[in-house]
Amino acid sequence: MRERQLPQPGPFFVNSTPPLDLNGLAQLADRLANAAATETLRRFRDPALSTDDKDKGEGFDPVTAADQAAEAAMRAVLATERPDDGILGEEEAQTHGTSGLTWVLDPIDGTRAFILGLPVWGTLIALDDGQTGRVGIIDQPFLGERYCGIWDGTSSRAWLHRGGTEQPLVTRKGVELAEAGCFTTDPFLFQGPEWSVFERLRTGVRLMRYGIDCYAYGLLALGHVDLVVETGLQAYDIAAHIPIIRAAGGVVTNWQGGDCRWGGQVVAAGSEALHAEALELLNSA
Amino acid sequence: MRERQLPQPGPFFVNSTPPLDLNGLAQLADRLANAAATETLRRFRDPALSTDDKDKGEGFDPVTAADQAAEAAMRAVLATERPDDGILGEEEAQTHGTSGLTWVLDPIDGTRAFILGLPVWGTLIALDDGQTGRVGIIDQPFLGERYCGIWDGTSSRAWLHRGGTEQPLVTRKGVELAEAGCFTTDPFLFQGPEWSVFERLRTGVRLMRYGIDCYAYGLLALGHVDLVVETGLQAYDIAAHIPIIRAAGGVVTNWQGGDCRWGGQVVAAGSEALHAEALELLNSA
Repeated sequence: MRERQLPQPGPFFVNSTPPLDLNGLAQLADRLANAAATETLRRFRDPALSTDDKDKGEGFDPVTAADQAAEAAMRAVLATERPDDGILGEEEAQTHGTSGLTWVLDPIDGTRAFILGLPVWGTLIALDDGQTGRVGIIDQPFLGERYCGIWDGTSSRAWLHRGGTEQPLVTRKGVELAEAGCFTTDPFLFQGPEWSVFERLRTGVRLMRYGIDCYAYGLLALGHVDLVVETGLQAYDIAAHIPIIRAAGGVVTNWQGGDCRWGGQVVAAGSEALHAEALELLNSA
Repeated sequence: MRERQLPQPGPFFVNSTPPLDLNGLAQLADRLANAAATETLRRFRDPALSTDDKDKGEGFDPVTAADQAAEAAMRAVLATERPDDGILGEEEAQTHGTSGLTWVLDPIDGTRAFILGLPVWGTLIALDDGQTGRVGIIDQPFLGERYCGIWDGTSSRAWLHRGGTEQPLVTRKGVELAEAGCFTTDPFLFQGPEWSVFERLRTGVRLMRYGIDCYAYGLLALGHVDLVVETGLQAYDIAAHIPIIRAAGGVVTNWQGGDCRWGGQVVAAGSEALHAEALELLNSA
């Protein structure tokens, strides 16, 4: 994923006019997740699944018929229900809207896991109001888990829907860096000067684990993982996580502590104190 | 796991007298898995779960109350149903039997994943007849998946039990190394001369992924993963996988192509041809 250009901030995100019906929009996000799940589940672990390589260089950046069908299904719902909103998705060209609201979609985050039959990929759905992410969903339909968040100041809430029940998502607090359980997708995405940063991180936390893409952010919101550190993310890799983690009590920024809506280097932590410790480690020479 | 001594081959495994009722023994293995699942599931994602550190050095080798309770539950079933069999388990001292049969138990393979709320840990159950592994189970009760195998020559069979249905486990064939999807638990377990071996492996396969412990072997038997390469395994980390993978059509040996029942360096492949390619890579200077 690191080979591709990040989209640049620009006229794409336009301020919308509050107040937004965030509960209604979160219900629409649920319907998008349902539409995507129909397409992904029928293809998951199908030996006939076709895979293409989007990377024109030495690497391997897989895309499957499931990615494409799931994004198309979500776009079809939006075309009917919210034709004036913009759409930034992984698989198709950006749609510029007029409402000031943008849906940020990754039909399958973790396509490599999907290809390998491992059920820790997820469908990522976010709603951005031009200032920040307001609604987020991480959907893992094979496990039947849907991590959801609404960022709305003091009315924010985050919850996990699983097996017909809902439970609140609350990050774990009071864990220092040396005691933390940390995830990153692939250590070899840290390149050049990032490698020594990663080495400090790996040896500085209690448990360093790899390879589960979006699902790590869900487990952080659920209070079982303390820290996620990544680099080379796209906007659609991180947008959904921001409202979920913030509403669950966590902090998610870039490595400098700033807005990470455009991807790049990202750090998510269960608490402000741990986030501060992580920023110090990431930026120490 | 690499800090502890491997158990040594010795008088522990004694030849038994065939023929064995392998179907009946596999049904007993099922009951062991059920007994363990009762103990693991009630503690998975429980914030009150207590964790101890078995590593007395710099590392972190976690064990939880769930590991201990699940092994005790399995041993209780065996004490009633098969009091003359031996038991080699991760959490308690070896039990030397007189029947020539040994149960090899890992109540939670992937304790780190368990602690972090990630449902790719598994309960591993194997039956060894003194010559080879004959019955194996990888149970992931949170997902409701049970990978099973009986190694019995031409009567061998392997199957996945999920959601009330069974499907045969058959490894994928016809995949060359350069096209392979490969897993290893943690790249930093490859140390000293193993590191350059790992680097060749990582850059030699199409997809290299990390961090899912036993579940990678299940996905290999299911035909979605082509290769698993690991080092520093204990006997109870690998015993269950051997009959499953062999009965599903795959090959699992140590890096020299020999018996890997005692753990150490392990390579599992979906086909003989891929296994041969992997051995060549692992042993090239």
